[in-house]
Amino acid sequence: MTLTTSPYDDDHLHEECAIYGIFGTSDAAAHTALGLHALQHRGQEAAGIVATDGTTFNVHRGLGHVGENFGEDNQEVMDQLVGHSAIGHTRYSTTGETALRNVQPLFADLEFGGFALCHNGNLTNALQVREGLVRQGSIFQSTMDTEVIIHLIARSRRASVVDRLVEAMNQVEGGYSLICMSKDTLIGLRDPFGVRPLVLGKIGDAYILCSETCGLDIIGADFVRDINPGELVVIDAKGVRSFFPFRPRPSRFCIFEYIYFARPDSMVEGHSVYAARKGIGAELANESGVDADVVVPVPDSGVPAAIGYAEASGLPFELGIIRNHYVGRTFIQPTDKVRHLGVKLKHNANRGQLEGKRVILVDDSIVRGTTSTKIVEMVRQAGATEVHMRIASPPTTHSCFYGVDTPERSKLLAAQMSVEEMAEKIGVDSLAFISIDGLYRAMGEAARNNDVPQFCDACFTGDYPISLTDYTGGRTRQLSLLAEAS
Amino acid sequence: MTLTTSPYDDDHLHEECAIYGIFGTSDAAAHTALGLHALQHRGQEAAGIVATDGTTFNVHRGLGHVGENFGEDNQEVMDQLVGHSAIGHTRYSTTGETALRNVQPLFADLEFGGFALCHNGNLTNALQVREGLVRQGSIFQSTMDTEVIIHLIARSRRASVVDRLVEAMNQVEGGYSLICMSKDTLIGLRDPFGVRPLVLGKIGDAYILCSETCGLDIIGADFVRDINPGELVVIDAKGVRSFFPFRPRPSRFCIFEYIYFARPDSMVEGHSVYAARKGIGAELANESGVDADVVVPVPDSGVPAAIGYAEASGLPFELGIIRNHYVGRTFIQPTDKVRHLGVKLKHNANRGQLEGKRVILVDDSIVRGTTSTKIVEMVRQAGATEVHMRIASPPTTHSCFYGVDTPERSKLLAAQMSVEEMAEKIGVDSLAFISIDGLYRAMGEAARNNDVPQFCDACFTGDYPISLTDYTGGRTRQLSLLAEAS
Amino acid sequence: MTLTTSPYDDDHLHEECAIYGIFGTSDAAAHTALGLHALQHRGQEAAGIVATDGTTFNVHRGLGHVGENFGEDNQEVMDQLVGHSAIGHTRYSTTGETALRNVQPLFADLEFGGFALCHNGNLTNALQVREGLVRQGSIFQSTMDTEVIIHLIARSRRASVVDRLVEAMNQVEGGYSLICMSKDTLIGLRDPFGVRPLVLGKIGDAYILCSETCGLDIIGADFVRDINPGELVVIDAKGVRSFFPFRPRPSRFCIFEYIYFARPDSMVEGHSVYAARKGIGAELANESGVDADVVVPVPDSGVPAAIGYAEASGLPFELGIIRNHYVGRTFIQPTDKVRHLGVKLKHNANRGQLEGKRVILVDDSIVRGTTSTKIVEMVRQAGATEVHMRIASPPTTHSCFYGVDTPERSKLLAAQMSVEEMAEKIGVDSLAFISIDGLYRAMGEAARNNDVPQFCDACFTGDYPISLTDYTGGRTRQLSLLAEAS
Amino acid sequence: MTLTTSPYDDDHLHEECAIYGIFGTSDAAAHTALGLHALQHRGQEAAGIVATDGTTFNVHRGLGHVGENFGEDNQEVMDQLVGHSAIGHTRYSTTGETALRNVQPLFADLEFGGFALCHNGNLTNALQVREGLVRQGSIFQSTMDTEVIIHLIARSRRASVVDRLVEAMNQVEGGYSLICMSKDTLIGLRDPFGVRPLVLGKIGDAYILCSETCGLDIIGADFVRDINPGELVVIDAKGVRSFFPFRPRPSRFCIFEYIYFARPDSMVEGHSVYAARKGIGAELANESGVDADVVVPVPDSGVPAAIGYAEASGLPFELGIIRNHYVGRTFIQPTDKVRHLGVKLKHNANRGQLEGKRVILVDDSIVRGTTSTKIVEMVRQAGATEVHMRIASPPTTHSCFYGVDTPERSKLLAAQMSVEEMAEKIGVDSLAFISIDGLYRAMGEAARNNDVPQFCDACFTGDYPISLTDYTGGRTRQLSLLAEAS
Repeated sequence: MTLTTSPYDDDHLHEECAIYGIFGTSDAAAHTALGLHALQHRGQEAAGIVATDGTTFNVHRGLGHVGENFGEDNQEVMDQLVGHSAIGHTRYSTTGETALRNVQPLFADLEFGGFALCHNGNLTNALQVREGLVRQGSIFQSTMDTEVIIHLIARSRRASVVDRLVEAMNQVEGGYSLICMSKDTLIGLRDPFGVRPLVLGKIGDAYILCSETCGLDIIGADFVRDINPGELVVIDAKGVRSFFPFRPRPSRFCIFEYIYFARPDSMVEGHSVYAARKGIGAELANESGVDADVVVPVPDSGVPAAIGYAEASGLPFELGIIRNHYVGRTFIQPTDKVRHLGVKLKHNANRGQLEGKRVILVDDSIVRGTTSTKIVEMVRQAGATEVHMRIASPPTTHSCFYGVDTPERSKLLAAQMSVEEMAEKIGVDSLAFISIDGLYRAMGEAARNNDVPQFCDACFTGDYPISLTDYTGGRTRQLSLLAEAS
Repeated sequence: MTLTTSPYDDDHLHEECAIYGIFGTSDAAAHTALGLHALQHRGQEAAGIVATDGTTFNVHRGLGHVGENFGEDNQEVMDQLVGHSAIGHTRYSTTGETALRNVQPLFADLEFGGFALCHNGNLTNALQVREGLVRQGSIFQSTMDTEVIIHLIARSRRASVVDRLVEAMNQVEGGYSLICMSKDTLIGLRDPFGVRPLVLGKIGDAYILCSETCGLDIIGADFVRDINPGELVVIDAKGVRSFFPFRPRPSRFCIFEYIYFARPDSMVEGHSVYAARKGIGAELANESGVDADVVVPVPDSGVPAAIGYAEASGLPFELGIIRNHYVGRTFIQPTDKVRHLGVKLKHNANRGQLEGKRVILVDDSIVRGTTSTKIVEMVRQAGATEVHMRIASPPTTHSCFYGVDTPERSKLLAAQMSVEEMAEKIGVDSLAFISIDGLYRAMGEAARNNDVPQFCDACFTGDYPISLTDYTGGRTRQLSLLAEAS
Repeated sequence: MTLTTSPYDDDHLHEECAIYGIFGTSDAAAHTALGLHALQHRGQEAAGIVATDGTTFNVHRGLGHVGENFGEDNQEVMDQLVGHSAIGHTRYSTTGETALRNVQPLFADLEFGGFALCHNGNLTNALQVREGLVRQGSIFQSTMDTEVIIHLIARSRRASVVDRLVEAMNQVEGGYSLICMSKDTLIGLRDPFGVRPLVLGKIGDAYILCSETCGLDIIGADFVRDINPGELVVIDAKGVRSFFPFRPRPSRFCIFEYIYFARPDSMVEGHSVYAARKGIGAELANESGVDADVVVPVPDSGVPAAIGYAEASGLPFELGIIRNHYVGRTFIQPTDKVRHLGVKLKHNANRGQLEGKRVILVDDSIVRGTTSTKIVEMVRQAGATEVHMRIASPPTTHSCFYGVDTPERSKLLAAQMSVEEMAEKIGVDSLAFISIDGLYRAMGEAARNNDVPQFCDACFTGDYPISLTDYTGGRTRQLSLLAEAS
Repeated sequence: MTLTTSPYDDDHLHEECAIYGIFGTSDAAAHTALGLHALQHRGQEAAGIVATDGTTFNVHRGLGHVGENFGEDNQEVMDQLVGHSAIGHTRYSTTGETALRNVQPLFADLEFGGFALCHNGNLTNALQVREGLVRQGSIFQSTMDTEVIIHLIARSRRASVVDRLVEAMNQVEGGYSLICMSKDTLIGLRDPFGVRPLVLGKIGDAYILCSETCGLDIIGADFVRDINPGELVVIDAKGVRSFFPFRPRPSRFCIFEYIYFARPDSMVEGHSVYAARKGIGAELANESGVDADVVVPVPDSGVPAAIGYAEASGLPFELGIIRNHYVGRTFIQPTDKVRHLGVKLKHNANRGQLEGKRVILVDDSIVRGTTSTKIVEMVRQAGATEVHMRIASPPTTHSCFYGVDTPERSKLLAAQMSVEEMAEKIGVDSLAFISIDGLYRAMGEAARNNDVPQFCDACFTGDYPISLTDYTGGRTRQLSLLAEAS
């Protein structure tokens, strides 16, 4: 089975991962499976859960969706994932190829007992650290950056798990959230800049750590609070304790979480994602309004911004493009034989809403521009007299190194062309992106603070808050000489 | 693998099938696979394609989605489906259990050569006809009503395929569309009342027959026209010929196709489905308006009607409920352990749009009422101060026998309760369905013509246009004594 | 999965099938699975069992071995095969391609209820009968000759199942044994010449019909007697009744059953198969003795004859060739890369027993001669100074049409070459086959009665006892226009 | 899939593993697959191959037979196993549960590059060493004893691979043969006592290391010599170099290799295995002859000894018991329903050779005695008047800790009973084992040298040549807290 995400999705950035952990309920793995299902949008290539009963660590990891690994056809697996505490992960790979050895959570038998870990984000000096560890005789199982953390913990001479973890994390750099589990402790951690999200929830007497609040909602858990940047929380039989063991840094939460990654029904760092997207749409209407008949979203990710745009502009909102919801991981092959037909696998024009009309298309972002070009052509063929595209993010000009799968800069359309050139290539009558300050205004800020920006917006600005050790100086990216045949 | 559709979908009626046929292109099977993919919403349990090169009939049939049987992982299968003509089918079973023997298209080696057939709809005297055929020594392979047609054709003494088919169809009753294929002919047929849809399209020199126009759009084919009720079209190397070999009857197209079955981007019998749904929503707002803050669709099927309602009422339209798009055929099991949590696998409240608001929920229909009850409870928990439900169809009080999977009457909420009782059970502050005349108005009629209704609306009225031979007189429903162990 | 038998076995004729039936025990399917396992040597491509509880017929049929379909990994299947009576089949195909539609037992819902049938042998006028049935409107599901029997029964106007079966069997010709099952009856039948075997056994109150006695031994059942040529036995709650409804013909049991097909531990028509093979070996030593040091069997089928040869000749018997028992259905591919190495996948020389010795190799038969050539070369490379081959059957010069998979005559080495030419091709110092009379002597006859031969020996003599209607006059062999893509 | 070996085989000791390595041919993996296939009898639970092209190490490891992982259905896998050098392994587990993480070859990315290793035998201080390594921060991937070797090499400060390996092996104890591969070197090694076998072969310019000579024969390679106890051979582009880096110890080759483990066509340490077995049979006839009519082997392992016994005694050799060769990894379940029938899945009596006769049954060994009991009962039911059992090994009274899967002593029949008691339990008229000196005589020795025995015969004598560090002092056997759900 080919495990790339559908090529028809290739025009978006992708979040690497969701992470989930729960402590203090007899059904820990079942809760975790549900939570990961709610977070499936953050990674669809693989899923894994480790549960512990205080002694044994029961694990299952597999390629594919959460439901394919922990669903109705896997009852035997679920029955074996016994434990009062569990952590889980869904993966969309950037670092490390897609292979079973790279499916999280990671586990190791350490001196003090079993230890499991899952991770959302990216370490920017993992290669450097790994080289040093290999020289000392550490044997790596995977090609994941995450694995260096386990080895640093294994070699630490500190007494407690928490002290070992702090010692390890002081040796790595990056943008990440972590959840770790020992036999009697669940630990959560965000990097000092707080680039990736992590929230705390509660259901009955059990505590939950997870990437987004929709992972709490699905099981009816209460949202307690966001974990803070640089905060480490320890959850055990005594409850929740909070530590700040790292040098404090200014908060730089990933602004793209609001634009595309997070689910619209999640609350992230105090903001409703849906409201943020509507706000961006409204701001976009204010910044670059145009005379037209109808506002049409590129479904599904453009819908909230389009609703905001329509409200602010007073134009009608219509589903002028219909998405086929049966586009899944295995999909119809537009074979060479039929590819020339301009096959419309994912989207179809709703001709009655487009014919003879001046259309404003609203989408969340443009990465390579390939999907946009096809959609505009389809809308014109359906009879639109004008097509104006409005994008609910600034031009994506830089790669992300903090846990998001981005094409190389040379593949980013906005890194290669001006807005006018892009408009011509995509074939629209006009094209506008929200301004960087407009984006910050939609988030409730007066403007971007260019000295100490309120968010990480490196993909739009190239302003990288965390050092990129492994990505400078020509370091080789080959982590293992082993190639699995399959 | 359990092949029931997700239990979380159990509160809708389900179309049985999509059918597709193409004649006159060297890539007939590849076109058919794409067309079926566009029609996947009409049946998700199984899919099949037969292609002919003029001699051999190459077939593949399998359980699961079109993409699972004819997609990127099945290139070898596709390579074997050689032929200039092909027909295909996706199935949501009502008659006949879900087993491989019941996956269409049906095929038989008849006296005159190979013959393949696929069918959308239901024959209402199939049991009666089958009993007679078995007495004469016919051996049935399946438990599908469709198979009687093949046997009647096999036993016909008429010379041509078309004459045999006409002779056969004169012996059966029901609401259906058919596509048949012999080595050199593609034949399409609608029952005399025209209950189920069938359209004609064209791409290059090839002709297409299929259930909805979205099956043409996906490959860029042109819509030519609807096949008429009682019309039989023969497509071969000489082109398209039209026949009306049956007694003419008044047109009674299934009105539920507009309400729920068809894709919003399809044109059906001259109407845009999306526009029809918006029109119903608008009519509903006029008939049963209520003071409120926001109009919220139950996604995805309630969205067009909600947009129509919002426009007509002047209230804001908001996505107050978010659907998890990763709910698929294999799904997360809400095990007994966690079921009590009120797991929200399919929908989640978008709290920011509901809290403190008077909410109008718009949905397409109520079948058992179980999903509605859960959604209302979820909306209230999210802080809605009032919940008013508006339904874009009249109360569903009767079963369908013409190709739609309907629960027995005793399971239909509207067959057991008044609207007031239903409102109480579902837990809403008010509940209103569109009136039957309102529905007809939304379809452009002045009102329902009670003498000769313009549509089949038996599920709302009990007015069945076609006789129900097999469903009266206590006929046994067991068609085969064979039970497949697996 | 490729389902051809290993190419390394391609130098033997192959029995088509084993059949099994039991009546009168609550564990009918479990008994049948064990019985088929004991008869696995008669067919390895597919297996099937139907059990009936007196109403429903529960079935499972699959490609592969009995153990792969009804073994420890299929407990759920076994649990569903409820019934007091069952019939089963293992298949090595000759008529009809290997596809699921051709896996027996066949089943049909007939006017009088369910009817299942399995068959060992071949009908020699099945094509002719089939053509007539298709013209009358019968629809065939498979490409098996066996299916005509079902259709003839379905169309019979006789009252009882037995009468219908007799009427049907009077319309077909061939060499076969049959087992049929209706809801309350088990029926066994051998063709009038008795070409294929069928035995009756008993365990407790249950009766068994099966191909060989080893199918009785495995469950500890007692052997009662052989079913006679042309005999039809009816087993039901009243016991066993015997009928002879066909024109009596001289007995012509297949002599190759003794040479290769049957298991050495079976008793067939009053003879121990092992003793028969030893007798053939002894006769061969008498007919064509040669001065040598050691008698070496080609394992495993040549072993009993080699023991007989060694005893009769007074020469030592040694395992000079060792067989790798892990050669199975999926096997190591001698890729193009390594094929030139003369890979010895199945056999290896036991050098210590061959080096410097004059070796008599004993094998059961020569079909194409390819394996013999390889083995002789291997034995010489191991240092044998002379290699004399002795074959425990006469030269195989004609194809079988009575249920054995034989290559076309043009592929039969003995049909193309004299014994001297064969010896040269195979590379032996001498080659001898047992004479036809020697073979009959080993079976306890004085000689072959050339007027009315005691056995069917058509593969050696071309003397076909049963007419070959379908194989004369250029009748097309294509039975179905349907090709399954997979 | 249940991966225990068939319960019907439970009355033998089992070799843990076969190992294979080749250096210097472009088809290294294909050669290795064939070689492992020839060695399949040494382990059937899993198989793996790593090949290197001098940079990358291409690997595939899987549960099941060699042919299931590297056979005709795995052509894509084979195509990816590119390299001029390869090592491979088949596994029958004793140390470490059967799970994918425990399938060899092991691989690690070490400071100096890739390193792969496979192992036949057992380390007797692996637990002790592992504990120390974990304390220092080594993270183990598996529960195999073998993995400590990799970690010791990783942590070694020596410069060359060979020096690191020697340093590592000086820290472990046990009976083993090893094959290791770095990017440009193949290394073979036998423990100082030479308990497990390892031979050197050559084909063209390529060198081969493997467990038995039958692994050379299959590809037509020449046998060069046995690797000596304590010898380390380095094979690279310069040829073969030999080292003896360990303290010399007296040779103690496993005598059970001759009795049962090795293939009869292999030459092991200068002896033909087949000839050794025949010699044991002859010696047994001399030691404990008995008046009888026929010598019958328990197939297949008892056959050579029975031939030897028959020759020495002058009694006829007959296949009085027939083995069903279709008993495989998935097998027919003798469900509770039918188990009482005394199901004969694996063996059947050849009644004609047993009825009315005094039978000498020859088998290679008795472990639990369960199979012997069943077979004797079966032979008596077939009419044998006397049954005398002769065993081609001394009583098995002790467990093996050097790489053979042995039941605990409490399960070994001979550890619990006298020969007379065993005879009574098994139900024979007489029972005799070969004497320990008789066994040594059959191997060409005058007698066992009790001061410095010529072989390891600990399973018969309890005389363990290598210290058993991990098996004394109550050390816990749980190596990992991780349990894979599946």
